[in-house]
Amino acid sequence: MQAGFTDLETTAMSAALQAARNGHRGANPLVGASILTRDSQIVIGHHAGVGSPHAEVDAITTAIDLGVDLTETTLFVTLEPCNHTGRTGPCAQAIIAAGIPDVVFALPDSNDVAAGGEATLVEAGIRVRSGLGRDESLALNARWRRAVDAERPFVTAKIAQSLDGMIAAADGTSQWITSAESREHAHQFRSRVGGILVGTGTVLTDDPRLNARDPAGEPLESQPAPIVLGLTSLPPESFLALNPDTIHLRTRDITAALGELHARGMRHILVEGGPSVLGAFFAADAVDEVFCYQAPLLIGPGKSSLSGMSTSTLSEAISLVPDETAEPAVERLGPDVLLHFVTDGTSLGSTDNYTI
Amino acid sequence: MQAGFTDLETTAMSAALQAARNGHRGANPLVGASILTRDSQIVIGHHAGVGSPHAEVDAITTAIDLGVDLTETTLFVTLEPCNHTGRTGPCAQAIIAAGIPDVVFALPDSNDVAAGGEATLVEAGIRVRSGLGRDESLALNARWRRAVDAERPFVTAKIAQSLDGMIAAADGTSQWITSAESREHAHQFRSRVGGILVGTGTVLTDDPRLNARDPAGEPLESQPAPIVLGLTSLPPESFLALNPDTIHLRTRDITAALGELHARGMRHILVEGGPSVLGAFFAADAVDEVFCYQAPLLIGPGKSSLSGMSTSTLSEAISLVPDETAEPAVERLGPDVLLHFVTDGTSLGSTDNYTI
Repeated sequence: MQAGFTDLETTAMSAALQAARNGHRGANPLVGASILTRDSQIVIGHHAGVGSPHAEVDAITTAIDLGVDLTETTLFVTLEPCNHTGRTGPCAQAIIAAGIPDVVFALPDSNDVAAGGEATLVEAGIRVRSGLGRDESLALNARWRRAVDAERPFVTAKIAQSLDGMIAAADGTSQWITSAESREHAHQFRSRVGGILVGTGTVLTDDPRLNARDPAGEPLESQPAPIVLGLTSLPPESFLALNPDTIHLRTRDITAALGELHARGMRHILVEGGPSVLGAFFAADAVDEVFCYQAPLLIGPGKSSLSGMSTSTLSEAISLVPDETAEPAVERLGPDVLLHFVTDGTSLGSTDNYTI
Repeated sequence: MQAGFTDLETTAMSAALQAARNGHRGANPLVGASILTRDSQIVIGHHAGVGSPHAEVDAITTAIDLGVDLTETTLFVTLEPCNHTGRTGPCAQAIIAAGIPDVVFALPDSNDVAAGGEATLVEAGIRVRSGLGRDESLALNARWRRAVDAERPFVTAKIAQSLDGMIAAADGTSQWITSAESREHAHQFRSRVGGILVGTGTVLTDDPRLNARDPAGEPLESQPAPIVLGLTSLPPESFLALNPDTIHLRTRDITAALGELHARGMRHILVEGGPSVLGAFFAADAVDEVFCYQAPLLIGPGKSSLSGMSTSTLSEAISLVPDETAEPAVERLGPDVLLHFVTDGTSLGSTDNYTI
């Protein structure tokens, strides 16, 4: 029990934190909320991603559907309720409108635009307390906060390789080696990001479309912007050159590229390769999470997925941390395995901060 | 329901097959047994590995402990009961001695030494039927049977690598990169095999002991024989040169080496590397199962785990099949992931016969 809070209040905040973990990492922080009723029932809500109702609103809506009298409840939320009108309206106003008299949040919102929710609630006569579950909420969003603080998009790196880490054989032959289930998962993930980034080498070799499709080949509802990094011009007839939405960043400087994307409003990108681009993102310490799709195939000598890294000795190797938050750390996709990592030790899902 | 057998009998054989899957692949076939009582209870047993009681004996012992009257039961076993006196005595005699009047087995035993159990049982007046669950039992032991038919040991290949498939960095630096949990698992596995094989290159580089130890460094009860493959002489002061049990096979011919090991009575070996030796075993189609330990580490350019394979183009890549039998296909060992495969499509654990 945390000082100043009852067991029941601690349980309600734990439920909110667990709900937060059901979201997706990315452009927004992982936030969960719960409502504790006078008869000790807990109603939960969470923020499912860009454009979805914020966690507080989801919990309020659920409680109203259940016939809860909100004027005798306490709202628990893992992040300070926002005060700004974004895509979904300010949460502070929704709480006031719902007549909730008592609010507990885990962590103040350091985002300037949205800050100030606490003051608004207090002005409206609501009792506001904070700090319960602070450390857990902080850990849950450490990667997101790092990207926000650096004023760059959240970066997911995607690796799709054989069991022995290869993306092409010695003679350069390559093709989709992952399963249909992996490809479907990868396309669903594409539809959750703002943009997909590849190097000019990948455009020349594979002529990709970088869109998000369902298994039948039909476009998914939300489409990412294609982003190409590098100095080489795109072949005029390539799919990406012909796509008016393509963003071609003519630089090799990862920090500059990410700054430019952030300035354009991009908050989550997926880096798909090739090896040189992936290596450059890891070298710049600009990767927040990693999805690694592995096909049960041994290619032998060939081009390895991270051959573009600039490491030369073992002490320079990059340590990843299995991540249970928001996605399972290990998932089977048909015959393939999908592994999910973050790039430092802040995940709640792992107690091992593994280094060699 | 299979023709000629009741639903209850089919269920009893399914239970025996499930028990067989709880064993370990390797020197012996996976065998399970069950006993169906007059009041429709099913008692199960299985063969846990070399030196353990055979499945039939395990089921009989369990049934006696439970106070079952064996003279009114039917015994179901996934392989024809053996007739020879090996380490554990003939099963046919144990069945006769137990007074069991009725036996159903799935598959005749093609092993000449042990064959003949059916005739012995019939001579003793026991009713014997066969064929129920035949295909499942055959599939369960296809890899084992292939090794027996080729008169070579069952071969498990062990790969221990970084996420990007590397075993050393570009400058050659390497060390244990897998977790303590992985190393403990690997040592337990070592204690289940007859021998551990490495190439002379590994002896020169790592000076390994190739023994099986517990986490405290104490030797486990069962120790494998160290086997070295290759023409180079061992350094006189190396651990393996000083170990009188070391078998040095001065050849590069995998088939000849396996024939020699079989002639010495070796029925299950673990091939630990390095990349050239692993590559040669895969090239000779002499790998039955694969354990791949993966540490959450990105090494970048380096020496890949299967750089010794002779493949040069994607169509020569080797396809593996995730295997649920006897071991989980995917297991977490601390921060590492252990993947388990067989080298063809005979596993019951997978419905996908995955090819590129």
